[in-house]
Amino acid sequence: MKLATIRTGTGTRAVRQDGDLLVDLGHADLGAYLAAGSPTAAADAATYPVEGADFAPVVPNPSKVICVGHNYTNHIKEMGRELPAYPTLFPKFADTLIGAHDDIVKPAETDALDWEVELVVVIGTPVRRASEAEAEAAIAGFTVMNDVSVRDWQFRTIEWTQGKIWDSSTPVGPYLVTPDEVGGVRPALSVRTTVDGRVMQEDDTATLLFDPVHLVQYVSTVIRLNPGDLIATGTPAGVGHARDPKVYLVGGETVVTEVEGIGACTNTVVKE
Amino acid sequence: MKLATIRTGTGTRAVRQDGDLLVDLGHADLGAYLAAGSPTAAADAATYPVEGADFAPVVPNPSKVICVGHNYTNHIKEMGRELPAYPTLFPKFADTLIGAHDDIVKPAETDALDWEVELVVVIGTPVRRASEAEAEAAIAGFTVMNDVSVRDWQFRTIEWTQGKIWDSSTPVGPYLVTPDEVGGVRPALSVRTTVDGRVMQEDDTATLLFDPVHLVQYVSTVIRLNPGDLIATGTPAGVGHARDPKVYLVGGETVVTEVEGIGACTNTVVKE
Repeated sequence: MKLATIRTGTGTRAVRQDGDLLVDLGHADLGAYLAAGSPTAAADAATYPVEGADFAPVVPNPSKVICVGHNYTNHIKEMGRELPAYPTLFPKFADTLIGAHDDIVKPAETDALDWEVELVVVIGTPVRRASEAEAEAAIAGFTVMNDVSVRDWQFRTIEWTQGKIWDSSTPVGPYLVTPDEVGGVRPALSVRTTVDGRVMQEDDTATLLFDPVHLVQYVSTVIRLNPGDLIATGTPAGVGHARDPKVYLVGGETVVTEVEGIGACTNTVVKE
Repeated sequence: MKLATIRTGTGTRAVRQDGDLLVDLGHADLGAYLAAGSPTAAADAATYPVEGADFAPVVPNPSKVICVGHNYTNHIKEMGRELPAYPTLFPKFADTLIGAHDDIVKPAETDALDWEVELVVVIGTPVRRASEAEAEAAIAGFTVMNDVSVRDWQFRTIEWTQGKIWDSSTPVGPYLVTPDEVGGVRPALSVRTTVDGRVMQEDDTATLLFDPVHLVQYVSTVIRLNPGDLIATGTPAGVGHARDPKVYLVGGETVVTEVEGIGACTNTVVKE
């Protein structure tokens, strides 16, 4: 099942893809739909064409967005680092998110705008201190994020937060795809970033050090997770900031961040 | 003017203190009240006694809580550090907050629970890339936070987030106090923490390296600030983790975090 939040002339709507149609799920967005227990669509539900759909962030207003650093084994080893004992966590906020096809607006305050393709866990049911079985059951599905990062601000201090939460910077979507469509809650899926068609990142979620179920258990030990909350599982090697010479996004480029079987964020970079 | 969010038998209410009464402001909490433009209370508004009032987090559901590290000049110098060029930012989430008199529940997962008294800015009006005048105007007032920190988790990785966002860990309140009551938007107020009556932290907000107006300008450069958003301005010397030997909170203790003219969070530590 593929679910999304789309923008219509009268506000956003939660929808389910059915061929070339999007079926209205009776809620304003997927956060509200998941919080309501993921009810079945009405028999006479409104529909919208997939073609030309305007995708909002897959969950526009999650109560929290938790991102994970240092999680692709190959990337960690390549950098000569020890495998970490614990996930590294940092935040985004709802105001940071944009739709999967929206423009990425490069802030005037940076010339170090970078990409990070990520598989994202979408929480379906409330959970705290989840057992393995509870964590598996709490995963509504997966989506894609480009964890757009403002590198100069990220490294101004020892805390990354100020480089990760820029307003309207971070595409997430277009679809929430349920686990049954991708082989379960620990899927092995290729991930890839291209910039103007040039491959910049390429790896497989099978090499995640901390898998989606482990991350739900870990984060929910610290704080409750609510329906619609997002956990971005980290990015593999190939970000612009780690290249020699460094490469950053500039106006006019198109960046595609894709996870096999889930979908792609396709975004044009525009100057503010 | 002193405003608060209190819990009643039928949910939370935004109130204004008037002597020994709390006057209902017609909104469920101060976030909704500020978002509505801070309207005047109705002439026939309900009232509640101050005595025995049950304080919710002063804003129970802010869209973001941004905390600042390394901001008290005396503390930075004492630690032999250079004065930083930029504020260090890290997050909390709405689910992290508790009321000013609620118990602090020590999670079973830590024996390194620590205090941090902080002056907190409450945002009153939406603002992005605020000029100095816009930042001054966007400050609805101030409140108090005990930025309770789980030190072992904070230092598990290079990012502090996982030690700062524990569920229902962080008292904030009891009152939002408007700037006119404390000498303006850059107030010089003594701050203090006591644990079972023993003074642990004592300093003055006059020694903040980045003052409230500067912080609103800085954070709003990165991300929009909405009515009810909170910026915690950092803590002075004297946290338990920096003592020799280290001291942490244990069950049964009472910790009081107080800002002159604003109020105090008074919380009993209980074991989970």
